[in-house]
Formats: sequence, C-alpha cells, structure tokens
Amino acid sequence: MKEQINVALLGLGTVGTGVYKILQMQKEDMIPKLGCTVQVKKILVRNIEKAAKKVEDPSVLTNDWNSIVNDPDIDIVVEVMGGLNPAGTYIREALQAGKNVVTANKDLIAAEGHELLQIAGELKKDLMFEAAVAGGIPLIRPLKQCLQGNHIETVMGIVNGTTNFILTKMTFEGMEFGEALALAQELGYAEADPTADIEGLDAARKVAIMSSLAFHTKVTFDDVYTEGITKITAKDIRYAKEMGCRIKLLGVAKDTPEGVEAAVYPMLVPEQHPLASVNDSFNAVFVHGDAVDDAMFYGRGAGELPTGSAIVGDIFDVVRNINWDCTGRIGCTCYKNLAIKDAKEVSNKYYIRLKCEDRFGVLAAVTSIFGCHKVSIEQMIQKRKTENTAELVVVTEAVKDKHMRASLEAISHLEVITEIASVIRVAE
Amino acid sequence: MKEQINVALLGLGTVGTGVYKILQMQKEDMIPKLGCTVQVKKILVRNIEKAAKKVEDPSVLTNDWNSIVNDPDIDIVVEVMGGLNPAGTYIREALQAGKNVVTANKDLIAAEGHELLQIAGELKKDLMFEAAVAGGIPLIRPLKQCLQGNHIETVMGIVNGTTNFILTKMTFEGMEFGEALALAQELGYAEADPTADIEGLDAARKVAIMSSLAFHTKVTFDDVYTEGITKITAKDIRYAKEMGCRIKLLGVAKDTPEGVEAAVYPMLVPEQHPLASVNDSFNAVFVHGDAVDDAMFYGRGAGELPTGSAIVGDIFDVVRNINWDCTGRIGCTCYKNLAIKDAKEVSNKYYIRLKCEDRFGVLAAVTSIFGCHKVSIEQMIQKRKTENTAELVVVTEAVKDKHMRASLEAISHLEVITEIASVIRVAE
Repeated sequence: MKEQINVALLGLGTVGTGVYKILQMQKEDMIPKLGCTVQVKKILVRNIEKAAKKVEDPSVLTNDWNSIVNDPDIDIVVEVMGGLNPAGTYIREALQAGKNVVTANKDLIAAEGHELLQIAGELKKDLMFEAAVAGGIPLIRPLKQCLQGNHIETVMGIVNGTTNFILTKMTFEGMEFGEALALAQELGYAEADPTADIEGLDAARKVAIMSSLAFHTKVTFDDVYTEGITKITAKDIRYAKEMGCRIKLLGVAKDTPEGVEAAVYPMLVPEQHPLASVNDSFNAVFVHGDAVDDAMFYGRGAGELPTGSAIVGDIFDVVRNINWDCTGRIGCTCYKNLAIKDAKEVSNKYYIRLKCEDRFGVLAAVTSIFGCHKVSIEQMIQKRKTENTAELVVVTEAVKDKHMRASLEAISHLEVITEIASVIRVAE
Repeated sequence: MKEQINVALLGLGTVGTGVYKILQMQKEDMIPKLGCTVQVKKILVRNIEKAAKKVEDPSVLTNDWNSIVNDPDIDIVVEVMGGLNPAGTYIREALQAGKNVVTANKDLIAAEGHELLQIAGELKKDLMFEAAVAGGIPLIRPLKQCLQGNHIETVMGIVNGTTNFILTKMTFEGMEFGEALALAQELGYAEADPTADIEGLDAARKVAIMSSLAFHTKVTFDDVYTEGITKITAKDIRYAKEMGCRIKLLGVAKDTPEGVEAAVYPMLVPEQHPLASVNDSFNAVFVHGDAVDDAMFYGRGAGELPTGSAIVGDIFDVVRNINWDCTGRIGCTCYKNLAIKDAKEVSNKYYIRLKCEDRFGVLAAVTSIFGCHKVSIEQMIQKRKTENTAELVVVTEAVKDKHMRASLEAISHLEVITEIASVIRVAE
C-alpha cells in the first residue's frame, strides 16, 4: 500500500483547474477514504507564468512532457488538454511508461478509444474516461459494471448542454435560433465558433463512446450520422408543443438485428418522456435494457467542477486499484463486432412542415406521393396562414430515411408546394 | 483465473427468479465479458417441489444451508430471501466461510449493514448490495465511486414505487387515497398488508442506506424520521397543482453542520424539479454535491428483472474481483461519525390546510399565532366553501418542526378553527 499516489495533470484550463480545486477540497478525506494521499506532483502547461496564478506551489508547473513521463514517482497521468494531438501520443507514452491514465478527452476516445483501451489492457493499466461523456454524470461505471446483466437495446441522450440551453430558450421564451445562440455565447455556454455544438458533432462523439460501451462493439465518431439544430424554428417548437412534444437534440443509438444505429438529430420528444423535462444546460442519458427496463442518468454535462467531479472519481478509483494491485481490471468491453447500419436504412417517425398554396387538391397530392413511397400518415394538420398560402403539418408513421428522402424529393417538385420548411424526426 | 465461478442463490421468489433468468440470458456473453462462466450451483428454497418448476435442473435445489456454506466450490452467495433472520446469520456464516456475498436485503443492510461490511472488509471479501436501494437503478457504485470527489450535501429520492404509483393516480385521475391503494393492490404493486410502503418504512430503510453512503457516516433505520401518505387527499394534490407543485413521498437526507437530517415524508415538489415528473412506479434519486452540483438517477425501483439486473451487475463485479484477487477492495465507507439531528430541529417550509368558520378575524388569529412562534407566512389563500365554513391554505417559510408543532397546537385551540385538515412539508 502506497502512502502517497502522485498525479500529473496535462493541462490547466477549465477542467484541469476543476480537478486541481477538487483535490484540494478532498485533502482531509483522502486518508480515511483511500488509505493514502493523492498529490499533484506536476502540471504540464504551455505558459508557466500564466498558470502560476492558479496554483499554490508554482514549482509543480512544467512545460516539459519528458519530465513527467520519465518521472517514476508519477503513478497517474490526468489528460485534460483536449484535442487529438499531442494528447493521444502522451497517453500512449504514459501507458508504455507504466502509468495509469485518466482522461476527459471525448474527441480522442471517440476516435481512438478502442485502440487506447487495448494498449492499456495489455499493459494491465487503467484508462478511465468518465468525464468524456456527459461531464459529471456517472455513466461509464453504470454502463460497464452496474448494467452488465443487460443486453442494452437503446441509449438515447441529451449530451450537449449548449444546444439544450438554446432549445430551452426557444421553447420557454419563444426566441429564434439566432437570438438564443447569441445569448448562449454571451453567457459563455457557447463558444465563439459554435459549430461543434450546434451541428451535433460534439454530441456525436459522445454517442460513439456511449454506444460502444452499451453494445460492446466498436462505434467511432465517423459511424455517427449527424444533423444539427440550426434549422429549428420557434414555430416548429410551438407546433410541437401543440402536439404535446418538446424538440430536443438527441444522440440516439440502438442495437438492432440489422446493425447498430448511431445518430444525432433534433427530435420531437413526447412530454411524458423523462428526457422531455431535461432543460437548460443539463444533460441526461436514457438507457433501455432487457433486464433493467428504462433507466436515466441526469446532471451537469460540463463545467469546471462537475467535469472535475467525474475525473476525481476516476482518479480515486485508480488509486484503489493501484493499492490493490488490480489496475487494468476492466479494459475494453467491445467483444462484439456488430455492423453499423446505413443511416438511410434507419426508420423514424417524421414531423414535416410544408408551405403550400391554399387551394383544392394539395392534401390529395401530398398524400398520394407519400402513399407511393409507402409512407403512412399518422396525422395531418392544415394551418391556414395568409391569403393564398397555407401551412401543412404532417406526422408520419415510422419510415426509412431513404423513403422519406425520396418522398420529399417528389413533394418538392409539386407545383402547389412552395417550401419544405421543416423535417424533424419524432422519438417514440 | 478461474474458468467457472459458482453461485448459490438463497431464495427463489420474485427477485431470485429474476437473477436466475438473467444469468441464463447472459450465458453467451459471460466468457467474452468476464473471461469465465458463472454457474448457479445451488439454490436454497423452503419447498423444493414448488421451486422445481422454476429451474432447468432441479438437482440444484436444496433446503440445507450447510450444504451451501460448507461447499468449498461456491464462490458467491446471493441472498435474496429478505428479512433480518436467518438472512443475517447466513451472510455472516458465508463471509466467515470465505465466500463473497451479494444481497438485495434492504431491511438487513439498513439495520446491520455497517457491521456486515466491517466483517466483509476484515475478511477481504466483497459484500455488494446495489439492489437494496432503488432496485435496478445504478446508485451504489455512483455514490461509492463516481461521486467520491464530492462532499455530498443532499440525497433526496422517490424510493418507493407503490406510493409513487398511488400518488400518481391521485394526481392524474383525481382518485382518493383508498381508491388508489385498492387499485395498486389489484395490480400487484401493493401488498395485502401495505403498511411498510404507505407508512414510509420501506423508503426509510433506503434513506438509511443512501445517507450512510453519501455522508460516510452510520445512519440506520431507527435514525430516520418517518411519515406516510395515508392522510394525503385528492384535494391537497389539487391545491398543490394550483401552486405549481406535485405531492411526492420523498426520502430526504441532508448533511448539515448541526448533524445529519434523515427523513421520509410526503412533500410538495415544484414542477420544475426533476423529481416532480417521476411518475407511476418509477423511482429516482436526486443528489447534490459540492463538485457535481445536481445529479439524478431514474429507473425501476422494483420488479423481477430490474432488481435482478442490479444483482447480476454485482455478481459480475465480484467475479472480476475474484479473478483479479481484489475482493473487499471497497468496504464500508463510513469513516465519519456524524451526529443525527433530532427531527424536531429540522427546518422545512410547510403547506397547511385549515377548515375554519367563515367570519371576521380568522386570518388575524391564525397570523398572530404563527407570529408568536416565529413562523413567517409566505402565502395565505382563503378558499370559500359552503355557508359559514371556509378553507384556509397557508404556506410558510422554512421553520423548525418543533415551532410548527407548537403553532399547530395553539391553532387547534382557536374557536374559529374547525380542523387542521392537512400539514405537508414543501421541498425547496
């Protein structure tokens, strides 16, 4: 049993600072909790002078990675710098040097997690990444351990706080997308370049990680079909409300006999669904398994201390594993090799808003095209607008993406249709 | 590394059957998942003939505990018989005989969990009990591992499905308590003797376990102050709705500077609170920590397969620990010795419904008594009923239980007050 476990932080941005703070907040609890202390021995930063203000003892700061990886006293490397490079190289080198690794890096885990876990497993070292999905929300251990008695069929979640904040503002304050995005940027919820959030790329990385864990198969970022929320309007949100639904950006993954479905898109979610009432910047992940039935995990998906909470949970677990000589106990759990279903083959119900001329025969024309493409209509609501133009809202039964695309292509050629204003999937 | 881990089930009721079924459902996944198989070698039952219909191979059935505890090939004892005795004795004997234990027994863990975990820890054996709180919902590992970087301040939950079902029916279908209880019994959600559920005793056991884990201190069933839902009326639920609240039976535990608060009572919960939309027989546990902020865990709190899911998750974890020689790694985490706060000293906001004579001076009399006992009033709504009698709904600011009791005692003596119809706490 070691009396002190030494940690090196790579990075001292928002998340790194959170980890540093929490380790100080936990100082008195470490010995009774773990039987030893956890000490931050080194912190890798780019600008030592700037970082000095954030730490008690600036002598821990370094900009020399070699001084960390070659230090035999460092037991755990905590990678909180983000990005694929050099983070991936550092993690590989740390594992090779016999160190355990904790990371919050969703980009890296979504792209190279399987390979990195393989390396860690062979070297019998821990590679933990609870913070890489849904920030502070406990999710990796629940999936890898608590729910191991399940065949998980669905993982579905609100895993991007920025877009959930934007959609919440659009829902409750009637804002349009641009206005809500500007507010999110003003409040620091969205970055200056918000692409990764609003186009669903950030969520897609988390879907890759979650579905790999849930279905025991390799799903990477490139496997996840992605649509963002930039086309969602306040009007669609209002219409959705009238139908008893909220619009949410969901990461959806399903294990089906024809392969794994993995996607991110905005969806209409019925108000009674537990995900529907997850608002503001909160995240939540809903899981359905053959034994546990429905379960959901809710909390803060980002932020200095919530993300730090997940990382420190990992660090403490690695500490216990080091002291019990059982690091690497749970490595990569992807023992299946499931196919990824082509996004065009994925079935969903759809909400479609059409602008059309207000004249006889429109309904018949639209219905007939859907009929030709085997799209059943569940609901069709005509909403009169101004003179001569009307709006038509159609909700379909579940239909394959490719059939929906073909229908919409045909509908767009109808003379009476002015615009296909919105096409949004509906969660069941 | 063992090629086969042998399990003995104690009991083959609802939960035992669930475990048995799930282990069969997981048969093909065991080797890739765990590196070995998990075999049910013996099942302790009272009536072998009756149990024989439930299993593939009846030769595993026995009514002789000694044949289990003395069998050196049995690695894990899974106690799903319930009750304090002989379950407690069996668990002690199993641990002493060098076996690891998984249990779903909330009565036992709430009463003797600390002592049992102590024994397991000394013997370096696992004693896992994920199923003892909130059934299938992953909660123990999140509290013991994922959230270890937190000082948890609040744990608050809907941890009894029967009462949540009853309150949901009262809320959405306007049923009175008796009617909803009868329906719950008819559907098998409530037992013939529903006392443990409707009086909050079952929830109190879970609060004892949850608060011990969250606050790292010994809290037992006897420490939990308990009120049930038998006095809740459809009218109170309607009035609560008008104020934007739902009535839920909550288990509430807080770590305060004056000691641990641990209680179960019905409360008005604001609609925006994530617990407010947890309906039917679903459970959910809400946690607030200094690092993670708010988090919530939602799912099925009971049932054959959901509870079995939690137990099999524990079994698989023990299997990994056996094969990595690290059983007993996380034992009792109660390293503090916090005082339990007297229930009379606990502060809450209150909703009070009074029946009174419809005459001048009632408001003044009630207000004056509250004033004398330092109870501030947040809201006071006069609801006229029939001739001469009126109803008065008062919502107070947070006030200590003892001051509320004294105020109500004084109010009950007021000539103008016909009845103190309801007294329900309000969650903030």
